[in-house]
Amino acid sequence: MAKQERAEQTRRSLIRAAALTFDDVGYERSSLTRISEAAGVSKGALSFHFASKDELADAVQESAHLAARTVVDAVRRRPGPALQSVIDITHELAALLERDPVARAGARLARERPASTELPHHWNAAWAEAVRRLLRHARTDGSLIPGANVHTVAVLVAYLMSGLETTVRDHGVLAELVPPQGADDPPEPPRAWLSRIWELVLPEVAAVGHLPVLMAHGSRPCGDEDGALCPLGPRAAEP
Amino acid sequence: MAKQERAEQTRRSLIRAAALTFDDVGYERSSLTRISEAAGVSKGALSFHFASKDELADAVQESAHLAARTVVDAVRRRPGPALQSVIDITHELAALLERDPVARAGARLARERPASTELPHHWNAAWAEAVRRLLRHARTDGSLIPGANVHTVAVLVAYLMSGLETTVRDHGVLAELVPPQGADDPPEPPRAWLSRIWELVLPEVAAVGHLPVLMAHGSRPCGDEDGALCPLGPRAAEP
Repeated sequence: MAKQERAEQTRRSLIRAAALTFDDVGYERSSLTRISEAAGVSKGALSFHFASKDELADAVQESAHLAARTVVDAVRRRPGPALQSVIDITHELAALLERDPVARAGARLARERPASTELPHHWNAAWAEAVRRLLRHARTDGSLIPGANVHTVAVLVAYLMSGLETTVRDHGVLAELVPPQGADDPPEPPRAWLSRIWELVLPEVAAVGHLPVLMAHGSRPCGDEDGALCPLGPRAAEP
Repeated sequence: MAKQERAEQTRRSLIRAAALTFDDVGYERSSLTRISEAAGVSKGALSFHFASKDELADAVQESAHLAARTVVDAVRRRPGPALQSVIDITHELAALLERDPVARAGARLARERPASTELPHHWNAAWAEAVRRLLRHARTDGSLIPGANVHTVAVLVAYLMSGLETTVRDHGVLAELVPPQGADDPPEPPRAWLSRIWELVLPEVAAVGHLPVLMAHGSRPCGDEDGALCPLGPRAAEP
């Protein structure tokens, strides 16, 4: 393996180990020693790649931003009503947070490092502007109910994203408020909670003509030529 | 001033100084030195009252829980439809978080100290069980729309509370998604966002007969003898 390739591999495993650590114990309690051990790399090798914990956190946030951005851009390229794309972005980001510790770490660091708010690769920057544009578009493509307040829907999405980011890590509140029906039932995953909320609000938000076709559970391209959308199903939650 | 009274006063100012610090920089970055300086108390006096940062954090969480519990219990004692009480609890807790750094610190510590999840004075314990009972009651008192899924409303409340707790500290996402109409307008306070969301979902959640009387902006007792409810107004946001 070429030297440069090996260096790139070390860098990637450091970012992943750092993400696992940040996701687990947060920025302040993550030590460079723990991260280098988790990556199976010497502290010298770590400091060759990253001069400080701050730099490592930046790299994790950049990586998380890229992952979120990729998901968001893929949804934006899909055909279909703009309101469906807004729903799909929340589902795809929930699935990303469920499966990807780098994404979870990026979202957590965005909260714990206030100085990173201005960074172009801040977690929220990956979706906030896209959602804002899509909601404006949903007014012109007719998927939003006439007279709907775009601001209110934007606020709802912001609450959902913020709620998602904390509940995906700590199911505590939801488990207490919404105990599983049977004692042995597993707790509902965050994506199921999202579907419930979209189901609840869609009749107030979606234009009557669009209501029957919008999917509160999220959609994905069916894969056929005419670009139709199929129900998202459990796929998005899988790695 | 009696010695015991002075000790009690020192203890209270330590809890308040600790809350301001925890609210500002979080648990990990809060040092006992900074807290004792903020309280205007020697480190010796601090350690007389609290053996560790953990003990101090427990005391802050207990204080925050008591404040939230007081607010929740006052709402529960009010007459009126149970669904209105659920709405009012979210508004009163938002107002509490806006005005009271001890409450904000308690909510933040609940998130940052996973070990405190089992504590009886965990932030969520102050409202989660009450909301669950009220939602069950809203089904029997007829304020909930027949066939409404109590679980879904409970999930919504949990998302609202989790979103509130983070947005009350960092208006960033909401300011980006929902910019004020005029360039010089101040950003909307969290309570205004809450009202928007309740307005949006009430038609899907409230029984038709109750819809005209339920107040998405929150209510409070009018103060007359028959226990009627009046619009909450800005009062709740004031100290």
